[in-house]
Amino acid sequence: MVPHLTTALTGPLLALEANFLDATPDIERWLRGMWQEHTPPFYGSVDLRNSGFKLAPVDMNLFPGGFNNLNSAFLPLCVQAAMTAIDKICPSAKSLLLIPENHTRNLFYLQNVAQLVAILRLTGLNVRIGSLLPEIVKPTPIELPNGTTLLLEPLVRSQYRLGLEGFDPCVILLNNDLSAGIPAVLQSLEEQFVLPPLHAGWAVRRKSTHFAAYDEVAGEFAQLVGIDPWQINPYFAVCSSVNFYERQGEECLSSSVDAVLGLIRKKYKEYGIEETPYVVVKADAGTYGMGIMTVKDASEITGLNRKQRNKMSVIKEGVNVSQVIIQEGVHTHERVGKEDQEGVAEPVVYMIDRYVVGGFYRVHSGREKDENLNAPGMRFEPQAFETSCSLPDQCQNPDAPPNRFYAYGVVARLAQLAASLELERTTPAAVEDMAVSL
Amino acid sequence: MVPHLTTALTGPLLALEANFLDATPDIERWLRGMWQEHTPPFYGSVDLRNSGFKLAPVDMNLFPGGFNNLNSAFLPLCVQAAMTAIDKICPSAKSLLLIPENHTRNLFYLQNVAQLVAILRLTGLNVRIGSLLPEIVKPTPIELPNGTTLLLEPLVRSQYRLGLEGFDPCVILLNNDLSAGIPAVLQSLEEQFVLPPLHAGWAVRRKSTHFAAYDEVAGEFAQLVGIDPWQINPYFAVCSSVNFYERQGEECLSSSVDAVLGLIRKKYKEYGIEETPYVVVKADAGTYGMGIMTVKDASEITGLNRKQRNKMSVIKEGVNVSQVIIQEGVHTHERVGKEDQEGVAEPVVYMIDRYVVGGFYRVHSGREKDENLNAPGMRFEPQAFETSCSLPDQCQNPDAPPNRFYAYGVVARLAQLAASLELERTTPAAVEDMAVSL
Repeated sequence: MVPHLTTALTGPLLALEANFLDATPDIERWLRGMWQEHTPPFYGSVDLRNSGFKLAPVDMNLFPGGFNNLNSAFLPLCVQAAMTAIDKICPSAKSLLLIPENHTRNLFYLQNVAQLVAILRLTGLNVRIGSLLPEIVKPTPIELPNGTTLLLEPLVRSQYRLGLEGFDPCVILLNNDLSAGIPAVLQSLEEQFVLPPLHAGWAVRRKSTHFAAYDEVAGEFAQLVGIDPWQINPYFAVCSSVNFYERQGEECLSSSVDAVLGLIRKKYKEYGIEETPYVVVKADAGTYGMGIMTVKDASEITGLNRKQRNKMSVIKEGVNVSQVIIQEGVHTHERVGKEDQEGVAEPVVYMIDRYVVGGFYRVHSGREKDENLNAPGMRFEPQAFETSCSLPDQCQNPDAPPNRFYAYGVVARLAQLAASLELERTTPAAVEDMAVSL
Repeated sequence: MVPHLTTALTGPLLALEANFLDATPDIERWLRGMWQEHTPPFYGSVDLRNSGFKLAPVDMNLFPGGFNNLNSAFLPLCVQAAMTAIDKICPSAKSLLLIPENHTRNLFYLQNVAQLVAILRLTGLNVRIGSLLPEIVKPTPIELPNGTTLLLEPLVRSQYRLGLEGFDPCVILLNNDLSAGIPAVLQSLEEQFVLPPLHAGWAVRRKSTHFAAYDEVAGEFAQLVGIDPWQINPYFAVCSSVNFYERQGEECLSSSVDAVLGLIRKKYKEYGIEETPYVVVKADAGTYGMGIMTVKDASEITGLNRKQRNKMSVIKEGVNVSQVIIQEGVHTHERVGKEDQEGVAEPVVYMIDRYVVGGFYRVHSGREKDENLNAPGMRFEPQAFETSCSLPDQCQNPDAPPNRFYAYGVVARLAQLAASLELERTTPAAVEDMAVSL
């Protein structure tokens, strides 16, 4: 199924896509060079928004949880990319311990885990699943809707190594974003590869650090292909020492909202765009669509009611919000689905190592084009990307699906590259201490 | 479209495939280890035959010419694999010179070239095409059926480098099998990567050297998964100093045919197989389906008429046959296509580097299951492999298409591994001299 693209997409994005198509060899070569210097994260997923005049990442996840949503035609790509990644990291690897999120009842998530296990097994690894849940005290089978079973096992920690009863893996793959902090059982594992590194978890990671790195990547890339970096890069600002509940930091928030809206207005004027500018205020360490609100005017910040303030105060795992990112909102002009299933859609692109391995649309029938779609009621369109993101077709129009998807794959890889820089820069030993203190 | 599999395939091959499925992690890990020690050829294609009781390679091509026959869904796999291959060989590569076969009128072949160019461009390389044809004295556009144009350019040779006017590539990729010998223009290129190496061409290469290496690979693999190596490996013998035209070497040929038929009969008896054993006699350096005949009894060798002897004497580029391989014939029990398009089929598996990137069926409606299908009247079923060869599905029966195709991918990779060994062993400087003397 090909997404229904509104007429807005016949505007400047065509120019952007045509530009990417013309520059394909340059883009690929530039990326190849970048990957010589920077190690890509083991995997990642990027939420993109496509406004017709702008195609930009709005979030980057280093623990992707939707492998089950990928079109099954893309699975060989996942296997091939995972083979390359494993070869590079630990070619002699025999066994891998996967540590998932603590969702034993979320069958969608568990299908993602099952899919990941399948991909990794096909690279030649013995894969077993270790649970961080204290109640998993013995091997616990969980039935999946397709009739298969996932076996969660209790972790066994020795002084320097982590494994399971009778299973001493050489690689530990996290599919747990560590929002609740870095568990003691994962600390000081000096003999095993931990992928991605612990500081990729939300206990340490900050969206603002990612987007600061993305700023640099987007700037260099824009110069390469001759575009305004704004076309692929949302403005943002950060406020620390925010406490929504106690109304601390409101001045910083409202002045930042004002500043970012001002920057957007200037760009809209420059390009003759008639949409209403908006910003998205998000917890800087937030995920799962929690701690997010859309703001069109700074006055909305001071006018928040108690319910709204409560909602913004706490994110996943009950962590308090203290730092906030104010990000330029990117309208999404894409709509996917038929009849009552039709809704606003944003592409989510999946990567393993430096390769785009698939994607899907996050669709929400109850939301508008300037709203967060990562909210209850969203659904996924696994079939939507019927062509892959690595294959532009020069014979087709720039807005033909393979070409639009190639553009998605390029921007997603820029975000993956930004994640590499981000992880390099947050690597120091100091990170261990930060984590312990959380 | 899924191939129509005859009932013979419910026999022992099920056991073989079930065996491969059970051993998937071991197989993949073993292959991973092998690729640490041996460099895979840049690309390759393997002709397989599937008799129900045996699944074996019967030929291995190091200059695959059917990329246009791959299902387009597999193209991202090609791009990803080519990226990895290029990264490994020459990460800083900017430009690649592709040297195709001298077929300017074979539009099927030229579409293969166009597809290869497209794949390589997507890895970030500037790709241009240099022709070995003396009549290409200036850039010559050739129109393809899909409306695109292929530009063939004359080669420009300096003392140590090969390129085009204004184009100094760092990699030279051969899609020409060098049947006519190694052209002077390709010799002594010490500064550029030539892929695959010159000794991979039929000027130097011998099928018997490949199958000797395959013997070793198949033996080790069979031990790994606990099967009789014969299930994946055809018997063979070699006769040198053969001249069909002058009836030289007939004694060697008929005694070898007898010997190989005897070995096959013994195995058929062991496994209770009731098919008629046969061997395929082929030029040891032959390709394009030339210089091939099927023999069921040694007496057929001495009874060849003049026309048959003429046909066996000369192969591609008018080269005389002097060495011959006598290979166990593997009946193909696969049939593909509908109604009058229906015919005997053999799978052809495509690889780039160590990755399976697609495949198709070679189908011939006018041939029997014990005949060579690489003959006029053959056609290709690009859509036939609707699932890829890297993705077995443990939830399905061993003979479900993904699993059957996984088995194809495994055996094809064994042949690719054998080609690595073969190329290593034929590498010495002596090869240059051999080539020059041709």
